[in-house]
Amino acid sequence: MGNVRLAVIGAGRIGRVHAENASFRVPGAEVVAVADVMRSAAEACAARVRAQKATDRIEEVLADHSVDAVVIASSTDTHARLIAEAARSGKHVFCEKPIDLDLEKIDAAIAEVKRAGVLFQVGFNRRFDPSFQKARELVQAGKVGEPQLLRITSRDPKPPPIDYVKVSGGLFADMTIHDFDVARWMMGDEVEELFAFSGNLVDPAIREVGDIDTAVVSLRYGSGALGSIDNSRRAVYGYDVRVEVFGSDGVVQVGNLPPSTVTVGGVGGYRSDGPLFWFIERFEQAYVNELRHFVDCVSKGIAPSVGAADGRAPVLLARAASRSLAERRPLKVER
Amino acid sequence: MGNVRLAVIGAGRIGRVHAENASFRVPGAEVVAVADVMRSAAEACAARVRAQKATDRIEEVLADHSVDAVVIASSTDTHARLIAEAARSGKHVFCEKPIDLDLEKIDAAIAEVKRAGVLFQVGFNRRFDPSFQKARELVQAGKVGEPQLLRITSRDPKPPPIDYVKVSGGLFADMTIHDFDVARWMMGDEVEELFAFSGNLVDPAIREVGDIDTAVVSLRYGSGALGSIDNSRRAVYGYDVRVEVFGSDGVVQVGNLPPSTVTVGGVGGYRSDGPLFWFIERFEQAYVNELRHFVDCVSKGIAPSVGAADGRAPVLLARAASRSLAERRPLKVER
Amino acid sequence: MGNVRLAVIGAGRIGRVHAENASFRVPGAEVVAVADVMRSAAEACAARVRAQKATDRIEEVLADHSVDAVVIASSTDTHARLIAEAARSGKHVFCEKPIDLDLEKIDAAIAEVKRAGVLFQVGFNRRFDPSFQKARELVQAGKVGEPQLLRITSRDPKPPPIDYVKVSGGLFADMTIHDFDVARWMMGDEVEELFAFSGNLVDPAIREVGDIDTAVVSLRYGSGALGSIDNSRRAVYGYDVRVEVFGSDGVVQVGNLPPSTVTVGGVGGYRSDGPLFWFIERFEQAYVNELRHFVDCVSKGIAPSVGAADGRAPVLLARAASRSLAERRPLKVER
Amino acid sequence: MGNVRLAVIGAGRIGRVHAENASFRVPGAEVVAVADVMRSAAEACAARVRAQKATDRIEEVLADHSVDAVVIASSTDTHARLIAEAARSGKHVFCEKPIDLDLEKIDAAIAEVKRAGVLFQVGFNRRFDPSFQKARELVQAGKVGEPQLLRITSRDPKPPPIDYVKVSGGLFADMTIHDFDVARWMMGDEVEELFAFSGNLVDPAIREVGDIDTAVVSLRYGSGALGSIDNSRRAVYGYDVRVEVFGSDGVVQVGNLPPSTVTVGGVGGYRSDGPLFWFIERFEQAYVNELRHFVDCVSKGIAPSVGAADGRAPVLLARAASRSLAERRPLKVER
Repeated sequence: MGNVRLAVIGAGRIGRVHAENASFRVPGAEVVAVADVMRSAAEACAARVRAQKATDRIEEVLADHSVDAVVIASSTDTHARLIAEAARSGKHVFCEKPIDLDLEKIDAAIAEVKRAGVLFQVGFNRRFDPSFQKARELVQAGKVGEPQLLRITSRDPKPPPIDYVKVSGGLFADMTIHDFDVARWMMGDEVEELFAFSGNLVDPAIREVGDIDTAVVSLRYGSGALGSIDNSRRAVYGYDVRVEVFGSDGVVQVGNLPPSTVTVGGVGGYRSDGPLFWFIERFEQAYVNELRHFVDCVSKGIAPSVGAADGRAPVLLARAASRSLAERRPLKVER
Repeated sequence: MGNVRLAVIGAGRIGRVHAENASFRVPGAEVVAVADVMRSAAEACAARVRAQKATDRIEEVLADHSVDAVVIASSTDTHARLIAEAARSGKHVFCEKPIDLDLEKIDAAIAEVKRAGVLFQVGFNRRFDPSFQKARELVQAGKVGEPQLLRITSRDPKPPPIDYVKVSGGLFADMTIHDFDVARWMMGDEVEELFAFSGNLVDPAIREVGDIDTAVVSLRYGSGALGSIDNSRRAVYGYDVRVEVFGSDGVVQVGNLPPSTVTVGGVGGYRSDGPLFWFIERFEQAYVNELRHFVDCVSKGIAPSVGAADGRAPVLLARAASRSLAERRPLKVER
Repeated sequence: MGNVRLAVIGAGRIGRVHAENASFRVPGAEVVAVADVMRSAAEACAARVRAQKATDRIEEVLADHSVDAVVIASSTDTHARLIAEAARSGKHVFCEKPIDLDLEKIDAAIAEVKRAGVLFQVGFNRRFDPSFQKARELVQAGKVGEPQLLRITSRDPKPPPIDYVKVSGGLFADMTIHDFDVARWMMGDEVEELFAFSGNLVDPAIREVGDIDTAVVSLRYGSGALGSIDNSRRAVYGYDVRVEVFGSDGVVQVGNLPPSTVTVGGVGGYRSDGPLFWFIERFEQAYVNELRHFVDCVSKGIAPSVGAADGRAPVLLARAASRSLAERRPLKVER
Repeated sequence: MGNVRLAVIGAGRIGRVHAENASFRVPGAEVVAVADVMRSAAEACAARVRAQKATDRIEEVLADHSVDAVVIASSTDTHARLIAEAARSGKHVFCEKPIDLDLEKIDAAIAEVKRAGVLFQVGFNRRFDPSFQKARELVQAGKVGEPQLLRITSRDPKPPPIDYVKVSGGLFADMTIHDFDVARWMMGDEVEELFAFSGNLVDPAIREVGDIDTAVVSLRYGSGALGSIDNSRRAVYGYDVRVEVFGSDGVVQVGNLPPSTVTVGGVGGYRSDGPLFWFIERFEQAYVNELRHFVDCVSKGIAPSVGAADGRAPVLLARAASRSLAERRPLKVER
């Protein structure tokens, strides 16, 4: 079989990462088109990855019969519509997280995917990080016994621009969504009930636009296992993303990834690197791996491991967390 | 001034630790008497530490005018009464945690201490551990900026005997009490509200006697900072006690203490020691340091740094946690 | 300026790494030709990196005026000749280490490079590893003060095939050569005298072909600083490559790079990953970075930081080590 | 049996450590006398450990029939004579390292010990450190297979006073002697040949009194295994004592012991404690353990594990190292 022919929709930062990975680091794939509402962005990206076509008209890409699949990396509010349109055009779909913030839109998009029978993958980067994967495999293999406690720490190095915060859907939908995904995946179980505390400790501007910047969310699973997630929009020492699964037979921990393995000893003790700056650096390999998985699934005609249900469930957790805050009580999670 | 003359009340495991430390590792102190309801235990301990007197009659010790201070290490249900009696006898008091599980008894004991004008210290070991102390000093000195998040992991290597569980006052009063103390001390702030999830995942016998063995407690401080504590009665890899304070300028973490610094590399990767077995080993130095502090305070006539208020406050947190469980909602903490 | 047009000579394992990196991960470069004595290898590699030409006739590549530079990744015994021929053809040259094992051949090749005025870089991977680079920068910036001691540990996960050992030039020229390069570069000083102990502890077959498999080499620098290198052909726990520079104001250490940041705690303590398997994995980023540097230098017309003198000097150290073994005494290093 | 009754000879720093340990932390032992040429030092130490007798006349202690054993912690030049005298008086002997710097004196002292049939232990602290012991046990148990390489790093935090340096016997006899002991013990094999490089990089005053302050010593064992030791008289980040045994089946490493397990993350990365300041702190537990072993052996009448031969052998290694320096060549070690 020939290469899987991809069109990348959205040539912003994460779109360019996907385009370069697809073009250069995913055997069996090629990027044939790049679309972006800013034509110059599409062109620059297409040139970089040697794609034949650059356009600001997404419908052109969807109408192109030589395109096998699309990588949706445009702004979140366009995801659900583009998923549906791509599915109707018979393209397999890789879509950045989240599918949408609105459950009805998510369900509508998923319905189109199912109707069209195309393959669908949502881009939860941690699922393809070598360390997260290894931890998950150990848990799945029973190496920590029955999972009993989950701890997730997830702190950004700095808040996004306030204009982004306004449209982000809020901390839970924008940032904790990754942790909610990890919480499900890592424990192999569904969260039944949760309780959220929040704070505005990082930047008053975030409060002014109605969002929070600090949170602790407690989880209770169907199995009876418990969990806890803590978030902050600003960790001055870098992007701090750790997870720990504790069980009846042990514990597995995923630590941060530093830019170097250098340690310096001096009068004040030892110094070592903080975590890699942010998600682009920390999950560099994960972004490669997730596209490799998608392309592999497309070329074999099998369903990706992170599909529509996995795109939908963490949104329900984010909604429950928001309601827990508003109602100041623990909440059962809808299904 | 001569040595501070101590009587140790209770010659069980922790009593013997205190007696040996007081006798051998605390300059300026000597153990002149050991009392225990089991006379043979008192005698064995007195012989070991070269104390002149061993008795099963505690009143004898309290009546002894040559005794400056008592170290109360008997069972928890005797603490409040012994504190009061010792205070009335004019003895300074070092008492193992907790003062009591009942707030009225605590307050009565504290009232006697105040009336008598004797010095009082409660034995929260973490307060005198070199690592916990260093972390606290860094936080106090502003090295992490404004504290925003607290994470405590505190897991025992194995559950206590079920007969002990029955009279322990429950996980929150017996085990989490240390974490509640650390939560106040490390953040330099009071917990205003908390929410608890619990589980019975370790041993059904614990459920049968009405207790829990796994918990996640979320905290909200007066300052708006948040926190999370997780507990388990059984970590097969050893006594896992970690704390992390995250703030506007950084993070400070206290890790576990291993029995050796040995690493072994083999076909399956690197292996290193798990944590020291349990509190006697982990807090060996802390037990020495806390008595040094007490003896130093007694000899100088100044108040110990961990006094009556610090003995009382974590009990209120434990009570709030229990009620949160019962009422399935977040609860404000009484004062 | 347009892309730097590269021809890759040698399509074995390391040649393919260079070809893929040059093609996909080095902005401003493209691979226009791949040459290998095995035509099928050249063709497979060219197809993978979308190079226009694949050939088993190296002279064809050298005669091609559209080729700006060559990447020499063929067997060591061909390096010196190919360097000279490429230089005479006016191509800039990136050559895998070592230039040759014979000093006269090295000098002849270097002379041709100088005569032709082409740019030349030798492929010492550690020079472009982020951790090694950071350590070197710290040493250069005086962060450890005056360097006084160097420690290098460099152990392969397993011996190469015995047929390779036969033609490898011996452990010092084949393996320690990297450490000799690091020893010069990291300390910013020349080794004046060295002494070698060796052993045959790994595989008797290595002794039978006249080579050694274990070594400890002591170094004395011009400044009076000292150093020590230890090598083994087989570390069962993986490719163990560490370096430490100790100085008047501190110490800097480069550790191994694990495949994941996962730690597992169980009854026997904690387990974590061993080092990445071997040089292809451990120095993946270094291989990218060294070509980026070469292409950057070529496009700007400036000399690469690792040139002819740096290719020659470690060979002199390897020769001195061999003679030290033979004569069982410390030896001054020729210049 | 009653307590083992000890006399401590020498009430300087290390003597006081032994006296306190013997008195307070070694069950079954008591210190009945302290002797020191400075009477006031003897008295202060005796008071601290509640010993009955303090004297500046060592013969008084040796004549005391109630004394079972002596702990010799006086200056090195008195060791051999005191060993002999104590042995002739029928006292068991624990002696600080080294026995002497002169082989004849060592042999004479050992001969007296043998003639008298008393038990003898030399105080090599590392032999009783929990981490060193664990490493040794793993090596002995074959966990790293056949030992092939040894690496020892041993660096003091600062040079001793120059007056001490003058009488110390030189770096090899004073400081490296510990590493030579570890080199034998850890590998379970004898060093057959060694080669030393040295430097004067720390303090010119050390050179002026004829000593060195920096060294790298290469070792070759009877088995063919190799080793390397590096020393410096000044590591500004603290007392750096590490050892690594590499073998056919793996590697075991002993790391430094920090004063706390605290890590701090900030803008510049993570910071953690340097090593404990010096030997008194680093080997605190080892000093306790070595006396426990001695007292246990005395009370059972069995030979300590670190006897006369172990006191003698490292001196031969130190002598060989000195000669290697002087003759600038590798040297076979005498037996």
